[in-house]
Amino acid sequence: MDALRALWSARSVAVVGASTRPGAPGRLAVEFLLRYGYSGAVIPVHPSAPQIAGLPAYPSVAASPGAELALIVVPPAAVPAAVADCAAAGVRVAVVGTSGFGETGPDGLATQQALVARARGAGMRLVGPNCIGAVGFASGQVASFSPLFSGERTALRAGGIGFASASGALGFGTVSLALERGMGLLAAVTTGNEADVTALEVLAALAAEPGCTALLGYLESLADGPALRALAAARQATGVPVALLVAGRSAAGARAAATHTGVLATADRVVDGALRQLGIVRVSDVDELLDVGDAVTLARPPRGPRVGVVTTSGGSGILAADAVAAHGLRLATLAPSTMDTLRAVVPPYGAVANPVDVTAAVLRDRTLVSRALAAVAADPGVDLLVACFCVLAGSDVEAVVTALAETASTSGKPVLAARTGADHLAPEAGAALRAAGIPTYPTPARAVRAAAALYQSAPAATTARSGPASVGARSPHAVDRSAGERELKAWLAQAGVRVPRGRVVHDPADAPAAVAACGEPAVLKVVVPGLAHKSDIGGVVTGVSAAGAAAAARRLRQLPGATGVLVEEQVPAGVELLVGVAPSPLGPVLTVGAGGVLTEALDDAAVRLLPVTEADVRDQLAQTRVARLLAAHRGRPAADVDALVDLVLRVAGLAASLPPGAALDLNPVVVHAGGAVVLDAALTVDAPTTEDTPPAGAPPAGAAPAGTPPAGAAPATGTAAAAGTAPALTGGR
Amino acid sequence: MDALRALWSARSVAVVGASTRPGAPGRLAVEFLLRYGYSGAVIPVHPSAPQIAGLPAYPSVAASPGAELALIVVPPAAVPAAVADCAAAGVRVAVVGTSGFGETGPDGLATQQALVARARGAGMRLVGPNCIGAVGFASGQVASFSPLFSGERTALRAGGIGFASASGALGFGTVSLALERGMGLLAAVTTGNEADVTALEVLAALAAEPGCTALLGYLESLADGPALRALAAARQATGVPVALLVAGRSAAGARAAATHTGVLATADRVVDGALRQLGIVRVSDVDELLDVGDAVTLARPPRGPRVGVVTTSGGSGILAADAVAAHGLRLATLAPSTMDTLRAVVPPYGAVANPVDVTAAVLRDRTLVSRALAAVAADPGVDLLVACFCVLAGSDVEAVVTALAETASTSGKPVLAARTGADHLAPEAGAALRAAGIPTYPTPARAVRAAAALYQSAPAATTARSGPASVGARSPHAVDRSAGERELKAWLAQAGVRVPRGRVVHDPADAPAAVAACGEPAVLKVVVPGLAHKSDIGGVVTGVSAAGAAAAARRLRQLPGATGVLVEEQVPAGVELLVGVAPSPLGPVLTVGAGGVLTEALDDAAVRLLPVTEADVRDQLAQTRVARLLAAHRGRPAADVDALVDLVLRVAGLAASLPPGAALDLNPVVVHAGGAVVLDAALTVDAPTTEDTPPAGAPPAGAAPAGTPPAGAAPATGTAAAAGTAPALTGGR
Repeated sequence: MDALRALWSARSVAVVGASTRPGAPGRLAVEFLLRYGYSGAVIPVHPSAPQIAGLPAYPSVAASPGAELALIVVPPAAVPAAVADCAAAGVRVAVVGTSGFGETGPDGLATQQALVARARGAGMRLVGPNCIGAVGFASGQVASFSPLFSGERTALRAGGIGFASASGALGFGTVSLALERGMGLLAAVTTGNEADVTALEVLAALAAEPGCTALLGYLESLADGPALRALAAARQATGVPVALLVAGRSAAGARAAATHTGVLATADRVVDGALRQLGIVRVSDVDELLDVGDAVTLARPPRGPRVGVVTTSGGSGILAADAVAAHGLRLATLAPSTMDTLRAVVPPYGAVANPVDVTAAVLRDRTLVSRALAAVAADPGVDLLVACFCVLAGSDVEAVVTALAETASTSGKPVLAARTGADHLAPEAGAALRAAGIPTYPTPARAVRAAAALYQSAPAATTARSGPASVGARSPHAVDRSAGERELKAWLAQAGVRVPRGRVVHDPADAPAAVAACGEPAVLKVVVPGLAHKSDIGGVVTGVSAAGAAAAARRLRQLPGATGVLVEEQVPAGVELLVGVAPSPLGPVLTVGAGGVLTEALDDAAVRLLPVTEADVRDQLAQTRVARLLAAHRGRPAADVDALVDLVLRVAGLAASLPPGAALDLNPVVVHAGGAVVLDAALTVDAPTTEDTPPAGAPPAGAAPAGTPPAGAAPATGTAAAAGTAPALTGGR
Repeated sequence: MDALRALWSARSVAVVGASTRPGAPGRLAVEFLLRYGYSGAVIPVHPSAPQIAGLPAYPSVAASPGAELALIVVPPAAVPAAVADCAAAGVRVAVVGTSGFGETGPDGLATQQALVARARGAGMRLVGPNCIGAVGFASGQVASFSPLFSGERTALRAGGIGFASASGALGFGTVSLALERGMGLLAAVTTGNEADVTALEVLAALAAEPGCTALLGYLESLADGPALRALAAARQATGVPVALLVAGRSAAGARAAATHTGVLATADRVVDGALRQLGIVRVSDVDELLDVGDAVTLARPPRGPRVGVVTTSGGSGILAADAVAAHGLRLATLAPSTMDTLRAVVPPYGAVANPVDVTAAVLRDRTLVSRALAAVAADPGVDLLVACFCVLAGSDVEAVVTALAETASTSGKPVLAARTGADHLAPEAGAALRAAGIPTYPTPARAVRAAAALYQSAPAATTARSGPASVGARSPHAVDRSAGERELKAWLAQAGVRVPRGRVVHDPADAPAAVAACGEPAVLKVVVPGLAHKSDIGGVVTGVSAAGAAAAARRLRQLPGATGVLVEEQVPAGVELLVGVAPSPLGPVLTVGAGGVLTEALDDAAVRLLPVTEADVRDQLAQTRVARLLAAHRGRPAADVDALVDLVLRVAGLAASLPPGAALDLNPVVVHAGGAVVLDAALTVDAPTTEDTPPAGAPPAGAAPAGTPPAGAAPATGTAAAAGTAPALTGGR
């Protein structure tokens, strides 16, 4: 059994630092375990008190009957001894709530690392420090001191949603909002500094839990690659949808690097590409996280993206249609027979095309909504329904709820609702809709956004994105760290990647023969070891004839640092792309995007984790704007997209042959009707290696000592603090 | 006095169609006027009943003591007589709630137009038909039959917010949410089919109302140009902020036109550009509309965009920082002295840089928040504050509210709050924060988004965008509808717009001399009257020498329809842009964007209403991605942006000299270090004229008879129905 299960279903919980002082964290945790009816044993640990809150207390966990889970809330200086006590006593998981470790600087970090080492040595997992604890909802296991649980009206509600949060305060704030909505939870775990256990790892463990219906997470980095892959695998295996709010977006691009690939593989792009590739929904705010949680918990997955909208308000219908277009769904085209049926239902001043507007005539005939919903749901061109209401007054509610529930159950299609009106007009509506399994949102746009997440999580969408696994050709050998353009191109050519014909000449007198061999006109490029951008120093001459070759080569040879001249065939113009491989905290990533002069101006790129499938690469290309240039246009034939995909897959396959931490930057790659050719290639080798990713037990990136990243450094992933624009990871206490 | 004032402050209201039947619209309206204490005279009009709801009833308005406002809720067939009665009785505004007019088809449209004509003839304004009425909050003037006002707990709250909505149901749904939040309203008017009065016109009238603090609107089109300009002028004069939700976004691009300018000046881009130009905030959903309404009503305008974030949760701080970057604000850099002050307040595991994280230590020392807020607010580099809290339990509230209110009042800077936790933990907090003048939001991102709107509405932001008025050079004469490339270029040159040297030859034998005159190498282009894209038929040859000119010209002369060959100097390569002028329902608009092959692939353009100032044009360019290519890059010098701006202003000045309804499309305009040159120019004359915009009294675009727009048709503006993807404008009953 996964030790992390103790976070929500331990048979016994020790509170180390249990206090006799009312309001102290160690007092609150004991009180909460009692108040919420925890069914296991509660073990207060206090140096001297014989009793805490009426329970027998113990001077140490080791001296107690023992505990599977321990919540440690002693002062910072006492934490090492408390961890040692727990480790010695056979605790499975120690949750350190105390702050004052990695988030305070190098000293705190060293102490924190020692805590992890101590836990590891005993086979104990460590959550935190600097978190607010963990809660199991079915058993009333509130191992937390969040003020949420002091609320007079706070009640636990057990359900299928697993939640993990790097931030304690925001995490339990989110839990409070989820409970207020009526959502049922399985577990809520806050992970603070993530010295050992990350929120991603908690989610991966929750995915295996029976009864888990959805996973929601708030993360401040996406650096735990193994846990991310484990989570994705669990999602794939169990079908449990996952939605993540990854903070630190504004850090994107702040660690600008010397290579284009480095610039474009920003932290945020890596997060975006990785989650899309793994079928995980990314949300942009807390309310959206809960909106999606409701959709995936209450509604079944749709078989496709075609939305039928039924509304009692034309305005809501238009807003829903706008959102459908904005979130990658499609407005269903209703069959003529469906519209015929609707014509008998909808008054002449309504609308029988999608969005279907039954109008306020429903106030006179309450069967209109159910008849319209049934007609739209029966249409084979509709995969899911969004029903929009505005002011829903008390007497309307029962008819509406019944109609929605019957539609969902009869059609087998998901039905979501928007209710854009004050709660007090029908206070019972929210609970009734939830009980009927209809996720309900305050606006049409939010309903549609949730529907889009429902579709993204559905097997249908995942299947559409996947394809035969392929990682492209592998290179015959590893490339050297010092490889220049010519060596890289030779290496690429061996892997079946097309490069221009060419050769390096050292004596300008040899240039005419080289031009003749490559074909006129040729391109001459200066060879300067270590120089990334030859054009910056005037080191590239195009359109060179054999006759002019010697003079051009002579001029290039005189440039500072020149060791030779590369003579190449001049490739016909085409669409210029960038293809690159760069390290990231999640392992090597593949970038494709706008190349040449457009690279920086358009900031147009998409990133995927390696390895990739052909379907991944095609989806990745479709995410860029520059790929639209590949289509036939104004008499220009379409570029050879298949050749480009083949090239990208071959480059992807070369990632394993790159020196550790190196970024490979092919820019431009020219694509035209005749194929795809790498015009320039550079290797940046001073990037940190993927091994630089903090291992478990090392501080989170946010707590790492500040420092200027080396030129060409790979971007951090999703770590707000790494860019200096956001605070260190403090667990939000 | 503006007649529209009767919509919220009439001395007497007639309900035409007052009913004895409980629940009937005409019964509800009378009951609502009584229930909400309307202080004026209520005049029920009924063919025979002597009394309605205890009030004396009259057979007609003419037979009554008279009314300033009439709400007409009789069946459709009786509406013309009711309107005639009102007109004859001297009613100032008749609000027609009844449906079944323009939204049902041509017959209903004709009836609707007759209603407007009848009203106009008597100097009476007409609101609707197909709306749910109008409410004045100070006087309890509920001239509406919305079920909102039947709610047991519904109470009016008078305040400074003016609200208008094209949709009735969505409009009163929004009003119900505003009241539930505790917002105070001045008026709420629904305009339905907008046969005469538009929501924009209502907002412009509300802007002049004493006590108006903010204007919020839900629109389904932005076609009422005069009202939009009146609203913008009122906003400028009074400083009242305006926020609009314009539905129908998904219609963007659906009426694709033949010219690039047509394609790029989509309905949604026109809406976007016009609102930005006029200093009106555009929102994307109902809750955002109310979020912005709270911010601009409760908080004062900031002097700049620099945000200081103070949080008790690191996670909230990161989310706030992300949103700051996403919404065009800036995270303030705190002064060293500010951070020194904070070091004495914030525990070591918190953060003294922005976002400032005081951590959950506030639970132990409630002065921490006020001291941290005071320090950040006193920093001269901070223009506005966003304070983030999570679980806010009962006992914290008073200290937090006091601290926030004191900070706002002492510093004179706006303070907004996020509270990411369940209401029930501190049920009084919402009202207390509102009473203290602190707009409060459920998440940090929503607080920051509202702060961004507050800044967009502030005089500081408006001033930053404006500049000396200038509409560029005016042309010496109007251009002819049949002008081809050469004639257009001559016309442009007369207006000081740079075009390549060139001449048209008819005999290929004259081509070499023409090339010699223009300079080698030259470009040869076929002349085919009416052909927009010469390259599609191979009609453009570049790099032509004098020696090769005759042969190239001969080949071009043989193309179908060729009447000659244009010989031009070959302009050096540069950044290719599109500059265009096109008609729109709001009058002519100016488009700039990516040109050449990038035009369609990047879909990168920004639109402004004409006339424009130089500041408008610079802001417009800054909105495009392609403008980033104009900067110096990789050894290439910066392009001459001033020359481009001068060119765009000159083109803008030519708009008045275009034939009615014509679109002028300059693509590409090449910009390099040496200037900006128009390489190709085309005029599309079969676009509908701006006079095609429905005049007041004509049906809204959504109700217009369906039809395929002519090729080259100008895009509709914001009218969802025009694209066939959204239902006809039904007023949302």
